[in-house]
This record gives sequence, structure tokens and C-alpha cells, in this order.
Amino acid sequence: MASERQYREQIVRYGRTLHERGFVAATDGNLSVRLDQNRILATPTCMSKGEMRPADLVIVDREGRLLAGRRRVSSEIAMHLLIYRLRPEINGIVHAHPPTATGFAAAGVALNQPLVCEVVIGLGSIPLAKYGTPGTPELTDALAPLVPTYDALLMSNHGVVTYGTDLSQAFMKMETVEHFARIALVTHQLGRQQPLAGEDLEKLVGVREKYLGGTQPIVPEPVGSRNGNKRKKTADGVEAGSEDLRRRRVSQ
Amino acid sequence: MASERQYREQIVRYGRTLHERGFVAATDGNLSVRLDQNRILATPTCMSKGEMRPADLVIVDREGRLLAGRRRVSSEIAMHLLIYRLRPEINGIVHAHPPTATGFAAAGVALNQPLVCEVVIGLGSIPLAKYGTPGTPELTDALAPLVPTYDALLMSNHGVVTYGTDLSQAFMKMETVEHFARIALVTHQLGRQQPLAGEDLEKLVGVREKYLGGTQPIVPEPVGSRNGNKRKKTADGVEAGSEDLRRRRVSQ
Amino acid sequence: MASERQYREQIVRYGRTLHERGFVAATDGNLSVRLDQNRILATPTCMSKGEMRPADLVIVDREGRLLAGRRRVSSEIAMHLLIYRLRPEINGIVHAHPPTATGFAAAGVALNQPLVCEVVIGLGSIPLAKYGTPGTPELTDALAPLVPTYDALLMSNHGVVTYGTDLSQAFMKMETVEHFARIALVTHQLGRQQPLAGEDLEKLVGVREKYLGGTQPIVPEPVGSRNGNKRKKTADGVEAGSEDLRRRRVSQ
Amino acid sequence: MASERQYREQIVRYGRTLHERGFVAATDGNLSVRLDQNRILATPTCMSKGEMRPADLVIVDREGRLLAGRRRVSSEIAMHLLIYRLRPEINGIVHAHPPTATGFAAAGVALNQPLVCEVVIGLGSIPLAKYGTPGTPELTDALAPLVPTYDALLMSNHGVVTYGTDLSQAFMKMETVEHFARIALVTHQLGRQQPLAGEDLEKLVGVREKYLGGTQPIVPEPVGSRNGNKRKKTADGVEAGSEDLRRRRVSQ
Repeated sequence: MASERQYREQIVRYGRTLHERGFVAATDGNLSVRLDQNRILATPTCMSKGEMRPADLVIVDREGRLLAGRRRVSSEIAMHLLIYRLRPEINGIVHAHPPTATGFAAAGVALNQPLVCEVVIGLGSIPLAKYGTPGTPELTDALAPLVPTYDALLMSNHGVVTYGTDLSQAFMKMETVEHFARIALVTHQLGRQQPLAGEDLEKLVGVREKYLGGTQPIVPEPVGSRNGNKRKKTADGVEAGSEDLRRRRVSQ
Repeated sequence: MASERQYREQIVRYGRTLHERGFVAATDGNLSVRLDQNRILATPTCMSKGEMRPADLVIVDREGRLLAGRRRVSSEIAMHLLIYRLRPEINGIVHAHPPTATGFAAAGVALNQPLVCEVVIGLGSIPLAKYGTPGTPELTDALAPLVPTYDALLMSNHGVVTYGTDLSQAFMKMETVEHFARIALVTHQLGRQQPLAGEDLEKLVGVREKYLGGTQPIVPEPVGSRNGNKRKKTADGVEAGSEDLRRRRVSQ
Repeated sequence: MASERQYREQIVRYGRTLHERGFVAATDGNLSVRLDQNRILATPTCMSKGEMRPADLVIVDREGRLLAGRRRVSSEIAMHLLIYRLRPEINGIVHAHPPTATGFAAAGVALNQPLVCEVVIGLGSIPLAKYGTPGTPELTDALAPLVPTYDALLMSNHGVVTYGTDLSQAFMKMETVEHFARIALVTHQLGRQQPLAGEDLEKLVGVREKYLGGTQPIVPEPVGSRNGNKRKKTADGVEAGSEDLRRRRVSQ
Repeated sequence: MASERQYREQIVRYGRTLHERGFVAATDGNLSVRLDQNRILATPTCMSKGEMRPADLVIVDREGRLLAGRRRVSSEIAMHLLIYRLRPEINGIVHAHPPTATGFAAAGVALNQPLVCEVVIGLGSIPLAKYGTPGTPELTDALAPLVPTYDALLMSNHGVVTYGTDLSQAFMKMETVEHFARIALVTHQLGRQQPLAGEDLEKLVGVREKYLGGTQPIVPEPVGSRNGNKRKKTADGVEAGSEDLRRRRVSQ
């Protein structure tokens, strides 16, 4: 278990990496770590994530009230609080705007085609959450139905959020989302996709279950809805066409 | 308030970053800082912006006459002078050719679709200025109608110019323009855009007004003109299709 | 001949390079070096290839049993063992997911068009192997028919594997695959390819033979099958459309 | 005037930059500097341009015979010798495979549309030379008609060569070619180009003449042949569609 100081340095380092890779521009993005039951260490608002120092971070409580730090809390803290509330095992969150994945999110296309076996094993599927105005409860309302089931979400007309048992896991999932988006985009540019299906997909579900400890089965959606090109808002907040491969959290 | 030496180092550093990111090639681009009412510190002509030293910069007066420095003043200084004249609060300017945004500018397509909420909040819309031959009054004539209203401009068949209250702000806007251009290009590659509209867009206008201190309302253009694919020069110098989300500077 | 310690450092260095270039995300990819007849030095599973240290590597025998190392062996070691078994002169292997080439592999399109002369000379053609579930004999069964004939393979819905007489050669082939995939993608984006053919292609075969020491002739496929857009599984495991320019290993 | 040692370091440094930017893969590319009337300092064959040391370079005479150095001369030296012979003022040459420009060269599309004013001023137009087998006189025969008139050439199914009064100038032209190719590709992805024409283009010719000292007029081609999508080999070795904006060297 790392010290608060180590967590501060980790956030600063991953913030710089986000910026270097072009996953954020200007003051975009935010990162956080759950220090304990009541305290979340997070990046401040209105600051380039490539130029932060450890002392620039803020600490908030479970309701987002500032506990420590000289800078202002981001209005996007509500998204972090939601995820920590719904997923007790999550301790690190990354929100960014990696350009390819954000392009999918601005086009209304989920990253839910099983095109690459290791993405199916690692993330399952990356759904597209409905749009919600930043800094309002709309945003968290749009994410809430998806947070229990997925570890990476496209946010319509906004960006991407990923989370894991620690910040490193969350960051690697962000890498995977953009990496997969780039691969998927190439298939669009070539004008054809050859998604995994049938037995091949079922076997991956088996690998994924083993990999995740058996508690998180994948339930693939019928093939017909896998094209990602239909858009229809559904009751539970997920864009239609992104329900395949969702992870059902049977027990925690 | 920084010293002249610090401004020189800042320009050198941002110049190197522009070059490292591929936002300029060869000797493209220029940066400047307003030192005081009468003096502008600027990059010289005919030099890679990735290889400048602080002593390579030039200082010019409000008419662009060389006050200090051994190198030649860029013919593009007129664009900087125009912006400093029309926008008293601006103290830093970046001009570059980031390839994706410049591709839009060479295709005659403004970056004016509200595809990403944080770009709407931060920049509003990025219009496409008419073409004007570099080093002639045509260029400044093409920009003049847009400078009071926007903080980032696509320049037809040329590149991008951004400006802010300091050079750091100007640079972050340049980052945002290219970042957004990459996102918008992905939506074109996917063959569909899902721009924000109606109530969602109005709420962002509210956020933007709060963010900018209430003095700079966004007036969205009718949806029909938002496709960015029609081109018709208008009286005030802006390419048709780029008038939505413009910022009206009611008072300063 | 390098020492084991030097090989460890080499693997760590190339692993970091793979990650920096975006050829892998998260814990993707693996690298190995054949130390001697019986021992293979390889990257462990579940670890970012950008953050390994020399002591993280594992040593396995020809059946993949752990001989040394505290970390777990990757389930993809079987692919490495296959290649070392079928190709006695190979001493280094790189497996990664470079995004453009992996996009071709997810679209079901081989990189087998003779578009760039130096790729024809250096690699011949890059076929697309059938899909096989990772961690099962399916995967090695899919690669086995191609390993004797080619030095770089696209793996359907998975990624790329390259191999050479040492790790440096293997890595340079990985570079070439992604570099060529980017070039080929541009031709798709422009909507036209102008592949080499006829006498021009025959002359390159001559250069390639001279370059490879005369033992590895290229046998170009009939032009009709070179479009890479047909998909039909063939008896020997290679996707149809990727048989041109294959290297026949007449003698070793 | 730099010393031989400085030229060696310069070549090593630009070689590393070519590799870092992905302008070459594996052992692709070569660079050279004319040391004096009889001696050319050049990169050796079969070596990554990202890993050279000053002592790896070779010195050849005007016929390409090795004068100094332990490594082998590249078979592409003939291209360098041709350029130095036809262009007495040229002292530095860069040959590379930047992926976007090489994609144009593999698609048979010249970079000859006047899409960006500073490219028109700096390079005029970038024609597409006919294909010629590397290491044979075909290659130099294909380039010879274009070398006197242009400073940057696309080589069909091969790559790009640029040259200048020193290596730095040559390198900056290589940057410009790839940078412009990326911009031009974006216009293709957006499905529209808005090239400069008429009076706007004529004024740029004026700027270019002033910039180049008046000795190198641009003669724009009729608009109809500017689309770059027709391919027809012409008598003087240039692909049809790439003759516009060529520089006529009236006097030297």
C-alpha cells in the first residue's frame, strides 16, 4: 500500500503521460485515487494535466467537499464519486479525451465489436453512455446504469472514463480503449470488419471468465445488433448497439 | 508578471513543443508576447521554431518596426499586430499549421460542429477565415472581422491562429483546435456525426457564459447551416457555415 | 555473442520501445530470445512491456516449463516455442499489436500487395494467418503452416508476430510491418493502389534473392488474387489473397 | 563551413530524428553531405539510421567508389551522385519513406495541388517520379528529368528524396513533404479540396520568386490537370498530373 505522497506522484506522472500522448488538450481530463473510505485524492480544475505538481492536487470527501488543497475541485468530481460509490473495489479513475475513442463518442458509435481477442478478454466491450451536460446530475445519471457492469465507458460528445483496482489498472484500460479505437477505425477505413463470432467468441468468454476469476461472465448480444451503427436510447442509459459482451457482476 | 527574459524562454519552449508535435514543419509558424503597450516580442523569420534560442527573438513596435534583435521580422507580424490592436486583453499569440486542422482549412471546412461539449465550453466554435495572400493586407483583412469574436481561427489554405491573455492560454487553445480537429476527422471517417443540439446545446451555452464571466454569450446558428460542407463567402469575411456558436463580445 | 544479462537488457529496452510507439497497450505483447538449444528468455504475463526490469523476465525450456524467474510465463509462449522449433536459425521473436497492422488483421485483409519496393525486398509479403483462440493449440495450428515461409505474420483478430536471427532483426521487421501498414492504409484512404507488377516485380525478386543469399526465392501469386479483399480459408491455414510473394525455404 | 566531424554528427543526428518520427523503418533511408568537389559523406547500407555513430559513415568519390570507412556503401548512392552532379549548389540530401507521402507515392498520386500557401512558396509542387528498380540505372533515369526543376520528389512505390544547400535545408524539406502529405490526406478524408487558383495562385508565384531570389519562376499548370488522379507516364519521366508549379531553373 502506497503512501499519500506516492499517490500524488503517481497522479502527476500519469497526468503528464496523458498529455504527452495527446489524450487530453489544454486543461482537459482528470484523475483520482481513493485514499481510504472517506478521502479521494483528485486533480484540480483549470490546470493542464501535463504541468501539475503533487501539491496541486486536492482531497475531497465522499460528497466532494474540499478537505485539503489550495486549488479548486473539478466539477467532474461527481463522476468519480459515483464510480467509487457503485464499485467498492475500485481505487483509481482516469477521465480523458483520447482523440480516436472520443471521435467514436462524438459519432455515436460504441466500441462494441469483438474485433480483437485480447480486448474482449481484457475489457469485454466498451459501451456508449448517453450524453449528459457536464457539471450536472444528467452526466452521472447517464453513467450510473453502466458503471456496475463495465470498466471503461465512452461518454457521448465528451470522452472516456476508465477505472480499476488501482490507478495503474485504470490507466492501462484507458490505453486499451484508445488503442482499440485506433484498430477499429482502421477497419472502418478499409471498409470491412471481420468480428469474432460463434464458437470463437464463446471460447473467449471462457478465457475471460477464467481471467477475471469466474465472477464476471460475458453475455454476448445477438449478432444483428453488433454493427454499432444504429442509435436508439434505451431505458437503462446505454446507447443501443453497445449491450453485447457486457459484464454481469453476479457477486462482489 | 514575468520578466522579458522569462518571456523569451517561454516562446522558445513553446516553439520547440510546436515542432516536436508536428504542428509546424521547416520554418513554419510564429509566436509572440505583448511586453507592454508598445513592444511585442516575436519569433524571427526563416528559422525552425524547434531550434531557436532566446537571443534569436526580435522586438517590434506597434507598427512592426524592429526595435531590438539581430534577425529579420516575419512578414506575418501584421497578423499579430492586428490581433493585439483589436483585442486589448490579449498578450500572447500562436500561429501554426497543425496538420489535421490545416487539412480542414485546406478543404474549406470550418470546425464549427458542436461535437464535443468541452470544446463548446472552451472555444465555442472555430470559424474558417477567407484566404488572403501572406505578407499582404489581404490576410489581415480576412481575419479582422473574426478577431473580436473568436479566440481561434482557421485560416483558409494556410493554418491556424490562437490567442489568449498569456502565451500559455494561446498555446492551450492551439492544442484544443488540433485535438478537436482529430476528433472531428474521426467522425468523418466513421461517416457520421452526432452533434449536440437543442436543449443540450443551450445548457452548454449557460456553462460557457458562467465559465467566461457572463460577458461572452454564445449565439448558436440555426442547425441547417451547421454541416460545414457548404462554402459561400459572406460579407464579414467568415466562410459560410462557421457562424454558429460565435462569441459576441458585448463589453470588455 | 551477448551475455544473458545483455539479452535481458535488450528485451527490456525493446519492450519499452514497443510501448512508447503505441505498438502495445496495457499488458499486451511479448518478446523472447533463444539463449541456447534448451532455454528461452521471455517476458512474463500480466505486466506492461513498458515497465519491465531485467529481473522480471522468465526462462523456459523447449516445452515452456519455467526454469528460472519469479513471474508467471505467458500463455502465448507456445507461439514462441513453435517458431523456435520450426526455424532453427531464429533467435529472437516479437509479438505486438501495432494498431494499423492489427486493424488490417481485424478487417481480414493481408498486407500482401507489392506497393513499396523495399518491403518486397525485405519481407516479401505479410500473410494473414487464420484466427485461433489465444492460449489454445488452435493458435499455433493457425500459424504453423506459415512460419517456415514468412518472417512476419498478421494474426487474425489479434496482432502481429515477427522473428529474426536476433531480437534486433525481429524488432526491425515489426517496425516494417506497421510502417508498411500505414503506407498501405494511406492508399486505401486515397482510394487507389498502384502495386508493382510484371517485369518490375520480377526484378525485385532478383534483388531479394541476392539480398537473402539466393536461398529464399519469392514466388509471386497471380495478380488476380492480390487484392486482399477476398476471404476464403485455405487448406494450409493462410487466408486467401496472401499467398503471393511467399518465401520458399528451399534449404537452410 | 563545418568540419568533417561536424558533418558526421549532423548526419547521425538527422538519422536519429528520421527514425524517431517514423520516417524510416528498419534500415530504410539514407543521408549524405557533399564535403568538397570530389568527396561525399554518406550513411552506410544495412544499418538502422536511428543507431548510427559518426564512425559508421562512409566517404565515396563522384563515381561512388569507397574512399574511407569500414562499412558498405548503399546501392542508393547513385541517386545521391546524380543529384550532386545535376545540381552544383546542393550540398545535402535526405532519402526516407515518411509514411503518408510514401502512401501517395504507392497510390500513384503526386502532391501537386496548391492546397497550402506556404508549401507553394517553399517547395512549389512535389511531383511523382516514375518507378525504377532500386540499385539499377532505371531509378536514376526516372529521377533525372525532375532533379533540375524540383527540390523534393515522390518516388513511385518507394519513398521521398529532398535536397538543399545544406543538410538542414534538405531535412526541413523532408519535414514539409510529410507535413503537407498529412494535410492533403485530411482533405481526401473530408472528401473535398479547395486548392488555390487564379489570382491567389499568381500572387504566391510572385512571393515565391521574391523568396527564391527571382531566378526560379513557377509556371503553374492548367487547372484541369491538377487533380492528381490521372496517371499517364509522360516523356520526361514525370507522372502526369504533377507538372504544375514546377520550378524552371533559368540560370544558375
